[in-house]
Amino acid sequence: MANNDDQFKRVVAHAKEYGYIFGSSEIYDGLSAVYDYAQNGVELKNNIRQYWWTSMVKMHQNIVGIDAAILMHPTTWKASGHVDAFNDPLIDNKDSKKRYRADVLIEDYAEKLEQKVQKEIAKAKKRFGESFDETQFVSTHPRVVGYRQKKEEVLARMARSLDNNDLADVKALIEELGIADPETGSKNWTEVRQFNLMFGTKLGASAEHATDLYLRPETAQGIFVNFLNVQKTGRMKVPFGIAQTGKAFRNEIVARQFIFRMREFEQMEMQFFVRPGEEMKWYEYWKETRLKWHLSLGLGADNYRFHDHEKLAHYANAATDIEFKFPFGFKELEGIHSRTDFDLKAHEEYSGKKLQFFDPELNESYVPYVVETSIGLDRMFLAVFSNSLKEETLEDGSTRTVLALPAILAPVKAAVLPLIKRDGLPEIAHQIIDMLKWDYQVQYDEKDAVGRRYRRQDAVGTPFCITVDHQTKDDQTVTLRHRDSMEQERVEISDLPAKMASLLEVKSWLAS
Amino acid sequence: MANNDDQFKRVVAHAKEYGYIFGSSEIYDGLSAVYDYAQNGVELKNNIRQYWWTSMVKMHQNIVGIDAAILMHPTTWKASGHVDAFNDPLIDNKDSKKRYRADVLIEDYAEKLEQKVQKEIAKAKKRFGESFDETQFVSTHPRVVGYRQKKEEVLARMARSLDNNDLADVKALIEELGIADPETGSKNWTEVRQFNLMFGTKLGASAEHATDLYLRPETAQGIFVNFLNVQKTGRMKVPFGIAQTGKAFRNEIVARQFIFRMREFEQMEMQFFVRPGEEMKWYEYWKETRLKWHLSLGLGADNYRFHDHEKLAHYANAATDIEFKFPFGFKELEGIHSRTDFDLKAHEEYSGKKLQFFDPELNESYVPYVVETSIGLDRMFLAVFSNSLKEETLEDGSTRTVLALPAILAPVKAAVLPLIKRDGLPEIAHQIIDMLKWDYQVQYDEKDAVGRRYRRQDAVGTPFCITVDHQTKDDQTVTLRHRDSMEQERVEISDLPAKMASLLEVKSWLAS
Repeated sequence: MANNDDQFKRVVAHAKEYGYIFGSSEIYDGLSAVYDYAQNGVELKNNIRQYWWTSMVKMHQNIVGIDAAILMHPTTWKASGHVDAFNDPLIDNKDSKKRYRADVLIEDYAEKLEQKVQKEIAKAKKRFGESFDETQFVSTHPRVVGYRQKKEEVLARMARSLDNNDLADVKALIEELGIADPETGSKNWTEVRQFNLMFGTKLGASAEHATDLYLRPETAQGIFVNFLNVQKTGRMKVPFGIAQTGKAFRNEIVARQFIFRMREFEQMEMQFFVRPGEEMKWYEYWKETRLKWHLSLGLGADNYRFHDHEKLAHYANAATDIEFKFPFGFKELEGIHSRTDFDLKAHEEYSGKKLQFFDPELNESYVPYVVETSIGLDRMFLAVFSNSLKEETLEDGSTRTVLALPAILAPVKAAVLPLIKRDGLPEIAHQIIDMLKWDYQVQYDEKDAVGRRYRRQDAVGTPFCITVDHQTKDDQTVTLRHRDSMEQERVEISDLPAKMASLLEVKSWLAS
Repeated sequence: MANNDDQFKRVVAHAKEYGYIFGSSEIYDGLSAVYDYAQNGVELKNNIRQYWWTSMVKMHQNIVGIDAAILMHPTTWKASGHVDAFNDPLIDNKDSKKRYRADVLIEDYAEKLEQKVQKEIAKAKKRFGESFDETQFVSTHPRVVGYRQKKEEVLARMARSLDNNDLADVKALIEELGIADPETGSKNWTEVRQFNLMFGTKLGASAEHATDLYLRPETAQGIFVNFLNVQKTGRMKVPFGIAQTGKAFRNEIVARQFIFRMREFEQMEMQFFVRPGEEMKWYEYWKETRLKWHLSLGLGADNYRFHDHEKLAHYANAATDIEFKFPFGFKELEGIHSRTDFDLKAHEEYSGKKLQFFDPELNESYVPYVVETSIGLDRMFLAVFSNSLKEETLEDGSTRTVLALPAILAPVKAAVLPLIKRDGLPEIAHQIIDMLKWDYQVQYDEKDAVGRRYRRQDAVGTPFCITVDHQTKDDQTVTLRHRDSMEQERVEISDLPAKMASLLEVKSWLAS
């Protein structure tokens, strides 16, 4: 099994080489933590978005979509709490002039303690072999117990200080731990300050006349401010949902892990409006429903786990993450949050408008409670992509690289390959493309030997190859090759649409 | 026939009432020239985008898509010329402190002269009746000739001054014409200054460490900077195209006409890379191909016209607009531009990287020429929406409002209506929805008399209503009602999917 770091590097390299993801403005040496989706990436991204939209909006008679603008009235972000509290604690090194997130410096320190633990475990494992009992070892070995204790103390103190906004203690902790600038080793630190993560811009022609705006840091507020307009014009009845996909922006100081944490990213969010008191029922419903959606893609149930939040955000009364096993470990992929009536009430207060629903069954008006499902489209892309990239050793001892994407999400559904470039085979291949292209993204490929073309399509992630050979001219059949099994079957050309349809039917995927 | 102003007001009101478009952050009294797409608007917008993408990317083996980020390296905008030359000429009134676009003030003055001409024509028409000869009248009537002459002189002088960046003369012209602040009547003007239309923002944690960025004012540059990466990883051969849809931002001072000119908008652009010298052939090809795409939607050939640019932008050697007849007259809907090698050469110069294609047939490398097709998604939305909104007088003398959207673009494809709310009819309706929802956006509606529901679906633009009645229980048939003809036919439930598929097949639409 590949080492995780190596696997992650392979993912990044493969994404570039096969036209999935490029660094933004690469000819200008890139823009940090911003990426562009290339010719295959845009199709995979669109397909994921579409799969989500189908499952949320098309499948639910009581969920509708919207597409709110990125620019919003600035009071929105006052009401939501982002102007006052959407901050990162930053610290500068006075010698190097480098800037860091104070919490990340401390977390890195804790991570090093954990690495020491792992090293001791590895050593002991090697020494004791089969008889090694890890649980016992970590609870008794004095150095290991010490490292773990220290790690927990450090993280707990940091969490406490940040909660209390005691930034002086965060700095004190950094100094007590002797944390140095990772690039220069200097321990000459400034105070810790809070830094707001929203990108600002100005609307209007001059400083004098300008209005300060923000690029939205989340799509959710676009749903809340439109809640009443959608409810009334759409004649929606509680419980109902509003779904939205779109860009959001966060001025992250330390953005890393490729497209996992970007400064510009895309969210797929759904806010479900329910009767007060019924939110826990719906919270459980959406936990289950969203996990089922993930599992329908067949990436493996072991790769998902729930992580219930012990400490809740100020707006929530229950929250969980669906975590996915990325190459760098289990990390948040989607959040499901019971947000109470916090957001709608805040917008009522700041706008002076009532944001209530009149419930005809109860014969009363109320501010609905909200259960949110929120997933990062780019993270979902990374989950699917990294999980699908495989190096396989074949029976004959050779290896192949295969991007075993779920067929329903693959950018190109089928490559049509004439065995050779003459004898009328290319013409037949183009006829097949003309037949399939209305329903599927298909590709023509005639260059190199057919075996090499199969490997290329494997690496791009194309689930089906359709090969036209001389027999095709006699009996109107082609070879249909399956990417994952590499099995080949002979299929009549006229059966191809039905064959493709059955393999790519969204109903069988979503309902699986 | 409705007056155009009235029609436009009806469009705006209908868009809000039926859940197509809301003002952004309306509960905070909106954000000027920014709009949100509501539950039906988002579906129409997505369907237009999809129809474009299908025709450009799916249909063309030599066109691929990308999705570049909104934030780009700032040198991009230096190379493209936007930092230096993407300006509007602004003027302030010293008394009112109001700000205006100087060119718009002058154009409004010219427009008033034209209105005087139109008034004279209307008067004369009334006086002379049938025998009135408009062509002769406008070329001989002294006042009319004078107004027209003056108008042309004014516009010509303004164009000349702006071309020469002679802003002093633009101000002189405003003063000579006696143009006053339209809101206060004051003629106390400042100098005219150039104002850059790009929204700025800052990347990084503080003014000291920050990088100045821009929100992209067009998507095209995201294609140019990725040209070589896409060509190489996609193994593309000239001629080939790169297509992209996405948001762009312009800090317009005078933004108006609803979603026609917004500060945040979405473009659908395709850059087609060709051999130098072959650009005019491809320019003609894309003119024809794009017009055909528009015509396929059936909005009426009379509503489109080409407007070839006499004066070309610095990067172009040929350019035309496809204009559409909006409620406020013929205006640009799409641009087709032969951009030469201007952009790629500029990026070569600023990045120091070669952006060339090695042409195996010619055995030489060159910087390709570019033919661009560029359409505003929001404008396309407005074109489709405003053209489809109709007030009809029926045979019985009653009127109905119908939004006769092209069925392929309609947000909801079918509404399923139980005739009454009992006797098992709702259950059958839901079974029909469960059958159709995997392929189509469908809606359940049981409230009010069925005639009223038909009118409501007409106004929303739903092309098909499927009504379940008592006969359905006997013979498994339903009524299929067509929005435009209001004809009803009896159809077996099991035939509905095939019926819908044939009416909504993208192939028959695109190929029409």
